[in-house]
Amino acid sequence: MKQQSAPTAVEPAGSAEAARQPVVGMVGAGQLARMTAAAAIGLGIEFRVLAAAADESAAQVSAGAEVGDYRSGDDLLAFAIGCDVVTFDHEHVPQHALRELVDAGHAVAPPPAALQFTQDKLAMRKRLGDLRVPCPGFQRVTSLGDAEDLADRWDWPLVLKAVSGGYDGRGVWVCRSYADIADVLAHGIEVFAEEYVAFERELAVLVARSPSGHGAAYPVVQTVQQDGICREVLAPAPGLAGQLAKDAIALGLRLARDLDVVGLLAVELFETQGGLLVNELAMRPHNSGHWTIEGARTSQFEQHLRAVLNLPLGSPTMTAPCVAMANVLGADDPDLHGKLNHVLAADPAVRVQLYGKPVRPGRKVGHVTALGDDMAEVRDRATRAARYLATGSEEA
Amino acid sequence: MKQQSAPTAVEPAGSAEAARQPVVGMVGAGQLARMTAAAAIGLGIEFRVLAAAADESAAQVSAGAEVGDYRSGDDLLAFAIGCDVVTFDHEHVPQHALRELVDAGHAVAPPPAALQFTQDKLAMRKRLGDLRVPCPGFQRVTSLGDAEDLADRWDWPLVLKAVSGGYDGRGVWVCRSYADIADVLAHGIEVFAEEYVAFERELAVLVARSPSGHGAAYPVVQTVQQDGICREVLAPAPGLAGQLAKDAIALGLRLARDLDVVGLLAVELFETQGGLLVNELAMRPHNSGHWTIEGARTSQFEQHLRAVLNLPLGSPTMTAPCVAMANVLGADDPDLHGKLNHVLAADPAVRVQLYGKPVRPGRKVGHVTALGDDMAEVRDRATRAARYLATGSEEA
Repeated sequence: MKQQSAPTAVEPAGSAEAARQPVVGMVGAGQLARMTAAAAIGLGIEFRVLAAAADESAAQVSAGAEVGDYRSGDDLLAFAIGCDVVTFDHEHVPQHALRELVDAGHAVAPPPAALQFTQDKLAMRKRLGDLRVPCPGFQRVTSLGDAEDLADRWDWPLVLKAVSGGYDGRGVWVCRSYADIADVLAHGIEVFAEEYVAFERELAVLVARSPSGHGAAYPVVQTVQQDGICREVLAPAPGLAGQLAKDAIALGLRLARDLDVVGLLAVELFETQGGLLVNELAMRPHNSGHWTIEGARTSQFEQHLRAVLNLPLGSPTMTAPCVAMANVLGADDPDLHGKLNHVLAADPAVRVQLYGKPVRPGRKVGHVTALGDDMAEVRDRATRAARYLATGSEEA
Repeated sequence: MKQQSAPTAVEPAGSAEAARQPVVGMVGAGQLARMTAAAAIGLGIEFRVLAAAADESAAQVSAGAEVGDYRSGDDLLAFAIGCDVVTFDHEHVPQHALRELVDAGHAVAPPPAALQFTQDKLAMRKRLGDLRVPCPGFQRVTSLGDAEDLADRWDWPLVLKAVSGGYDGRGVWVCRSYADIADVLAHGIEVFAEEYVAFERELAVLVARSPSGHGAAYPVVQTVQQDGICREVLAPAPGLAGQLAKDAIALGLRLARDLDVVGLLAVELFETQGGLLVNELAMRPHNSGHWTIEGARTSQFEQHLRAVLNLPLGSPTMTAPCVAMANVLGADDPDLHGKLNHVLAADPAVRVQLYGKPVRPGRKVGHVTALGDDMAEVRDRATRAARYLATGSEEA
C-alpha cells in the first residue's frame, strides 16, 4: 500500500520544537513598517514593531506590536530585548537613545553614525561635500543678515530647510522675499539655506547594503513631486541616459559604503543640465521604492530585512519593462474601501496597497502600482486608480 | 512659500477616525492562513484567524489570532463576531457547526452546502456523477465481499479512500491484495473504492468565484506528487494541449458555479489517454496555487479574500512565461534558517516562503518559487533550493 496512516483531522500544532526564527524589531509603525511586516512573513522572520499607539498602521497587522515612545531610551531598550537587530521606519529616534541601544550590546541597523546623516541635514551636506558628492550649495542661516548675503550670491528664490525633523516637504521653504525668510526664522528652529536648483526632473536611486558589504541597487526611477510630496514614481526613469543611470547607481552604492549604511539607502536626486545633484537621503524603505513590491523580484521591504539580518541580498531585477506607482493622498471622503470596488473592477491587474490609516487631506493613505510594456499606459492606469480611491473621480 | 508647516516629528497616530476596514475571519491557522494574512495587509483587510494553538503558523504573524476549537459551535460563534465573512484554511469544520454559524446570520464562504463536497468524498463523487463530470469509477465498500466484486470488475490494484478526513495522501490506500483491503477495513472508518487510474500525469486547475457570480481561472498547472504529497507545481502545465487546457478551465469554472462555491476552488485532475478525470476538490487556497504569489498578477490568497468579500476578482495572468514551485518537506535538520543563507546567496532571484512550523520528516514547512523563460531551468532552480533547505544538500 502506498499510504498506511490512518486518516486524522488537522495536524496537531507545536508538537515538535520549532527552531528559533530571526527576530527583527522596527521602531515606528507607519506604512513602511506595515509593508515590511508583510515581507517578513514570507522569510519566516519574527517581526516586531514599536508603535506610538496600538491602532497605528503596522500595529494593526503585527502580532508583535508594542506601544512605547521612540524618544525614550528605556522604551527602546525594553523593545530591543530578544531582537536580533533593531531598525527603523523613520529617522526621528534621538542619537542619545540610539547610543544607549548600541552601548547595551544591541545590533542597530543602520548604525547611529550613519543615521545621523538623515537626522541632521547640515551634517549630511557637510559630509557629502567631504566625499565630493555633487550637491546644491548650502550655508547655515541664523539671521536675516546671513540670508541677505546669500540672496546676493545665489539670487532668488532661496530655499530654507530645517536642519532636522522635516519630511514629505515639511521643513522646506522656498522663499521669494526677505519677508518669507523672516517668517521661517520666526519659527525659532535651526535652518540652513540651499541654492535653488532649476532641475529638469527628480530621480531617486535605492540601494541596499549588508554588514558584510554586499550591495544591490534597483533601477533608477523618476519621482514626480507636488508641494514637496511624492505623487508618482516611474520605473525605470523614462529616457534616462545610460551613463547617468550608471552614475546614479554607482553614487548610491558608494554612498552606502562611505556612510557605512546597513539596510536601505534612498538617494533623492535632481537631474540638471549639469548632471546629478543629491537632494535628500533616507536609510529605510522609501516611497520611491514602493513599486518594487510587484515590480522587482525582491521588494525593498524584503531587501531591507535581508540586509539588516546580513542575509544575502535578493535580485533587484524588474518583473516588467515599465512600472508606475501613484500615491493615494487623502481627500474629503474618509472611506477608501467604499471606492475600492470600482477600482478593482475597472482594472483587474492594478495593484492596490492600503495602509489602514485614517484619511486626512493630503496624507499618504495608500498607493497603486501598474505594470506593463508601455510607460504612458501604466502611468495612466496607476494615477487614475489612485485618484479615484482618493476622490471618487478619475478626473484630475 | 511652497510649504508653510512648521517641522514636526512623526505624525500623530489615530487623531482622525479611521473608516471601518472589512474583516475576514479564517478558521485554521496553518500556512494557508499565514499566506492569506500577508495578502490581507495589502488590501487593508483586517484578518483574524482561529488557531488551535497560539504558536501556529498563521497565529505567529496575525494581530487578530484567537485560540479555539474549530469543532466547537460555540468557539466558532464567538470567533465570527465582528467578521464580515468567515472562511477556512481546511475542510474539517463539522457541518453542524457551519450550520450554526449560518443560522446565527453569519456569512460563511464557501457555504456549508458547497463545503460538504470537500468533506464527504462519496457525496462529492455522487454529485460530480450527477453533473456528468468525468471521474474514476467509485463504489462504497463496507465489507471484504464488496471489494471482491469490484476487484473482479476493475482488476487490481484497488484504491480505497476514506470518505472524510483525508488530505496530502492520508486516507488513500492503493491495495494490491485482499489482505491490504482487510487492513484498511480494520481501521473501522467509512471508505469507498475507486478505479485505479493509470494516468499520464496530474494536473490542477484553480478558479475563484464571488457571490455575485464573477469567476476567474488561473492557467492549468502540472503537479508532481510523491507518496500522495505534492512535491512540485509547474505553471503552465508543460506541453498541455490547448483544447485540454480550455476544457480544464471550463470544468473548473462550471464546477464552481454548479457547486455554488464562494472563494477558491482547486480541482485536482488526472490527465489520461481518454481525457481528464477529476481526482479531488478543495475550496480554499491550495498547494497547487502557491506559485501565484509571485507568478500571477493576483495571488490565490488575495483572490480568495476578494472572492469571499465579493470584491471584483484580480487578474490571474502570469508574470513570467514559466514558473516552478517546489515544496520544502521536513528532513532531519530542524533548522531551516541555518540553511537559508546558502540558498539566497546561490540564487538571488529564487523566492522562499517559510511557514514557521516545527520541522518534522515529510511535513510541508515551506516552498520555493522560481520564475523565468525556460521550464527546465526554473524547475531545476526551485527543486535544488527546496532540497537544500530541507536536507542541506542539493543532491536528490
